[in-house]
Amino acid sequence: MAKKTVEIKSDEKRLRVIISGVAPEIDAGCFPIKRSIGENVKVEADIFTDGHDAISSVLRYRRESESNWTETPMEALVNDRWAASFEVTELGSYYYSLLAWVDHFKSWRRDFEKKVNAGVDITIDLLVGAQLVTEAEKRATGADAKQFHVWGAELSDKSPKKLAKRTQIALDEALFDLMIRYPDRQYVTYYEKELRVVVDPVLARFGAWYEFFPRSMSPVPGRHGTFKDCEAQLQRVSEMGFNVLYFPPIHPIGRSFRKGKNNNPQCQPGEVGSPWAIGASEGGHKSILPELGTLEDFRRLVKRAREKKIEIALDIAFQCAPDHPYVKEHPAWFKKRPDGTIQYAENPPKKYQDIYPFDFETEDTAGLWEELKSVFDYWIEQGVSIFRVDNPHTKAFPFWEWCIGALKKEHPELIFLSEAFTRPKVMYRLAKLGYTQSYNYFPWRNTKAEITEYFTELTKTEVSEYFRPNLWPNTPDILPQYVQTGGRPAFAARLVLAATLGASYGIYGPAFELCDNRPRAAGAEEYLNSEKYEIKHWNLNAAGNLTEFISKVNHIRKENPALQSNESLEFHPVDNEQIVVYSKATEDLDNVILTVVNLDPHHIHSGWVELNLRQLGIEPEHGYQVHDLLTGARYLWRGARNYVELNPQFVPAHIFRVRRRIRSEQDFDYYM
Amino acid sequence: MAKKTVEIKSDEKRLRVIISGVAPEIDAGCFPIKRSIGENVKVEADIFTDGHDAISSVLRYRRESESNWTETPMEALVNDRWAASFEVTELGSYYYSLLAWVDHFKSWRRDFEKKVNAGVDITIDLLVGAQLVTEAEKRATGADAKQFHVWGAELSDKSPKKLAKRTQIALDEALFDLMIRYPDRQYVTYYEKELRVVVDPVLARFGAWYEFFPRSMSPVPGRHGTFKDCEAQLQRVSEMGFNVLYFPPIHPIGRSFRKGKNNNPQCQPGEVGSPWAIGASEGGHKSILPELGTLEDFRRLVKRAREKKIEIALDIAFQCAPDHPYVKEHPAWFKKRPDGTIQYAENPPKKYQDIYPFDFETEDTAGLWEELKSVFDYWIEQGVSIFRVDNPHTKAFPFWEWCIGALKKEHPELIFLSEAFTRPKVMYRLAKLGYTQSYNYFPWRNTKAEITEYFTELTKTEVSEYFRPNLWPNTPDILPQYVQTGGRPAFAARLVLAATLGASYGIYGPAFELCDNRPRAAGAEEYLNSEKYEIKHWNLNAAGNLTEFISKVNHIRKENPALQSNESLEFHPVDNEQIVVYSKATEDLDNVILTVVNLDPHHIHSGWVELNLRQLGIEPEHGYQVHDLLTGARYLWRGARNYVELNPQFVPAHIFRVRRRIRSEQDFDYYM
Repeated sequence: MAKKTVEIKSDEKRLRVIISGVAPEIDAGCFPIKRSIGENVKVEADIFTDGHDAISSVLRYRRESESNWTETPMEALVNDRWAASFEVTELGSYYYSLLAWVDHFKSWRRDFEKKVNAGVDITIDLLVGAQLVTEAEKRATGADAKQFHVWGAELSDKSPKKLAKRTQIALDEALFDLMIRYPDRQYVTYYEKELRVVVDPVLARFGAWYEFFPRSMSPVPGRHGTFKDCEAQLQRVSEMGFNVLYFPPIHPIGRSFRKGKNNNPQCQPGEVGSPWAIGASEGGHKSILPELGTLEDFRRLVKRAREKKIEIALDIAFQCAPDHPYVKEHPAWFKKRPDGTIQYAENPPKKYQDIYPFDFETEDTAGLWEELKSVFDYWIEQGVSIFRVDNPHTKAFPFWEWCIGALKKEHPELIFLSEAFTRPKVMYRLAKLGYTQSYNYFPWRNTKAEITEYFTELTKTEVSEYFRPNLWPNTPDILPQYVQTGGRPAFAARLVLAATLGASYGIYGPAFELCDNRPRAAGAEEYLNSEKYEIKHWNLNAAGNLTEFISKVNHIRKENPALQSNESLEFHPVDNEQIVVYSKATEDLDNVILTVVNLDPHHIHSGWVELNLRQLGIEPEHGYQVHDLLTGARYLWRGARNYVELNPQFVPAHIFRVRRRIRSEQDFDYYM
Repeated sequence: MAKKTVEIKSDEKRLRVIISGVAPEIDAGCFPIKRSIGENVKVEADIFTDGHDAISSVLRYRRESESNWTETPMEALVNDRWAASFEVTELGSYYYSLLAWVDHFKSWRRDFEKKVNAGVDITIDLLVGAQLVTEAEKRATGADAKQFHVWGAELSDKSPKKLAKRTQIALDEALFDLMIRYPDRQYVTYYEKELRVVVDPVLARFGAWYEFFPRSMSPVPGRHGTFKDCEAQLQRVSEMGFNVLYFPPIHPIGRSFRKGKNNNPQCQPGEVGSPWAIGASEGGHKSILPELGTLEDFRRLVKRAREKKIEIALDIAFQCAPDHPYVKEHPAWFKKRPDGTIQYAENPPKKYQDIYPFDFETEDTAGLWEELKSVFDYWIEQGVSIFRVDNPHTKAFPFWEWCIGALKKEHPELIFLSEAFTRPKVMYRLAKLGYTQSYNYFPWRNTKAEITEYFTELTKTEVSEYFRPNLWPNTPDILPQYVQTGGRPAFAARLVLAATLGASYGIYGPAFELCDNRPRAAGAEEYLNSEKYEIKHWNLNAAGNLTEFISKVNHIRKENPALQSNESLEFHPVDNEQIVVYSKATEDLDNVILTVVNLDPHHIHSGWVELNLRQLGIEPEHGYQVHDLLTGARYLWRGARNYVELNPQFVPAHIFRVRRRIRSEQDFDYYM
């Protein structure tokens, strides 16, 4: 379909075609859309002209490094809407735009056919057609030009007995096809913007993240864990089906105002402090806490992980403990108080004296920006390509746009996960200006109405073009009330929701596997004895762990491409508010997954689901099989309305593969 | 509230505030919004910054001719949305934009108060406040600077016994108010666009149009009507309550291929032809058909009409009869066929040989554009300020944008009504690029669902910012099936709908008053013996005419400001599909009109309406009166749910004035 562009002239007054309402286009083209390698960009636009003339339009696109555009024709849908798509096959930026023009040959051909059918006189119309063909001859070369010449001459031949022959040529599809290849682009409307697509690795779209604290990974209780201990965990993490292993900050931890266990402002001797209080005499954001090991150890861990197809994600938290070397070396980067001390973080009346925020209004913006960017550069050199950025919403937006833009220009494979748990417009802005993925409100979307509304917003609106949600049912900061009160069935249900609603999801692993649901206090969403402030020793083989269940879910995700992206998500009505049902499908409907979750961790629930069969690719008159990939059970269903029942004490969810071709019980595998 | 802007510096890296999602803003600011004199422009935007700092924002606006901006503070709504408004008081263009900045004093004041309330140490905070006040002193002059100086000194006074006094000053509203007047605008984010408002006369928003053919206005059957005859009609038109009188084209009518009665391609001698076949040996678009009178007659008619508060609207149809002088004088403006003849209008296989369209791809674009614009200029000189433009969608869009823009720059009072009955996006585009008002799909929106959906689109979406509908239940081209079959009750219902759904509406008068509903053929939407092709003699006093009813409706429109704009339109549910109920209200809810229409012209219908009381300004626990302005009947209603019943043979509609203050029958006027 696609071909290289031809030369184009223009004249504004004669540009009769309008191109508007282009989608996707974020904030009038201020921000790029996002895709991962191998995905399509479907572009739509309103394209029309005055009067009744036919028009033609092409979508054009190019990689940032190329100057030549590739073109692909737009097709008319309905109501003046046109569409075309292209596939992105390489990392980095692509640009796309549109052009359209009045197509006199198309108009002529359409009207000529009507006149022939109505039996009215067409002798002058044939001469008009001949003119158009003769003009196309001038635009063509070689055999095509010759062919035009022959047709042009025949169409011009006024001898009465040639009329039938001329009419036949005029309506010849071969003429039409050749004319379309040599359009008259004298007066072409160019869409005024070149819109950008950022193409990320597949892992930006589809990945399973596992978080643990390296310092808790020692097999010996009481000993500080090391990167070597982490290496020993890689096999287990890989077997569970995770492909990103994310660590809280690995840097030296400040000593002044260090927090004790359970966020105690009074730290006892020997307490390890929070990894987010970054920087001490040993170094800052480019150093490693000595207890964890050496830079060599870290580099080897990254390499070993990659051998098991696991990427190590680092936490970048741009804030300093009072002992951070920056504090002395770059006092201009911090706000001073009238008494000469440095302004610590506050949420009045609460004080966070262990944390100094950077002052993004510093006179030394240039120095601060370059240094912060160099932190990423440093860890990229050590082999890291994924960064989970802590509280990006408390740093200036222009910094992120510049920093991520500059980094991704050199390293288009980078993935930045925004940890901004804040107001929606701030979260969306961070995504627009460069963040690859984003934490989101999933931890607090628990009811059917909440889940349906939120994931419809994330997948069915423009938001889906730039905001990729990464779904975490828990984090070291967040122990949602739902799992506090619901116990193991609640953890299992939230895992299935995260892993099937989100192509990208993650868990704060050990606490999740062991269904740790003890809050710091009643009503609090924080963990009791939080790992943020102390070293833990997890017994991951403890009874009741979810390890095998998690492995199974991750395996299902890998086997089923429907679960590897979010655009196809569709909710189906069920007559029970405690059951949520949704499907995902590949574009060719070859892989269709229907997930059913009982949201009540305490009781068995049943209901009648009303499926949107068209979305599942099912013909209403035929039966079909739903195969529960969690339990292996198979059900023969027919029509839109079917019964579901789930016991949370057993498994709180079905993950059905919908198998369309199997139409009766005799066709089931187990009958063969 | 509003004040003149102060000087502003900026530095991009430190611009921490984001302004986005500005509304109204049409197609990223490519097109202006529309207002009429005295209306408000309410501007909203998403405004936020990183972190927890407080921000301030102002809306600024100026007339096109001014270089100074006027500012008015934006107020925070919810979810990072801010709003402010300004009133437009003069014809022509205004511009508006926004700016916002991090407001360190506001942040400090908010945090200081929290700390005071929590009883924590505030001695250093007082010194921070003193610094901020001292900086403000530098920005101020005169008494304000002195006042800052006093406060700054007191806040800095470290003697312990001053603490209470200093705290009191820090929290003093007077300090806050003065600080707000001298903001620190060192790092201000300017919204990058200046958005335009076109301010039109009130008649652009609110007007009642009446159309007749001047040639049919002779009191003597068989004689060609004249402008003098039209003068004699002004009193009647004025008494009926119309303020725009619109004429089909008044130019010489072509003789070649002239159409006969009922669009007969064979014209009989003496037949008058269609006024839209413009141009003959007597002249073209700047000439008057001699039978109508002289230019002097026309100018006097315009003057006499204006004395009665009626504006004459002219029809501008840019197309030529074959005898039009342009055809000889400017052959380049028309498309030639290979046989040397000029291309006439076609809708294959139909031919319109009496009409030559202009070729907007002519080499002489400049000449054609200037000449067409000069047609408007000519009639403006004769006193015309309203133009109904025939089929604008068959002329190039760039021409209209240029032509209307240039004309309105010199004559901002002009009103252009677009007669584009075509696809929605084309109609909306014409409105965006300059048309003041637009014909629309009203003639084909007859059921409750159709009416509700269409008028919700027109009044509750962005469309309302640029597309002003003018509602016509009939035109010389359109005799809708609904009135063909429904007779007089259908005409009355459609009149009420047009006049209350649309602040602007119009009727093709004589045919409407007399309920002429005879179609050219069964299923056709055209009139039998259409006035387009012949002179008619209307007996406007015939029995069953709607004249008095129309007068009453127009009177109600004039008395009730709620009906003079469209934004407040709200539909209310009724449990009968044949009854539609909607309200309009002034912003202060002082004038509230509730319209109830029985859409079935054949049967009595009744139903229970479920009012949105809040929209009507009614407290649910109090009774209220609805006063039918059509019949004078008054009903005492209570609560949201009330009974309505309408007999179409009597009056098919209620136009209720909702009177909130009258709470029991004893308060009614007729009891006094």
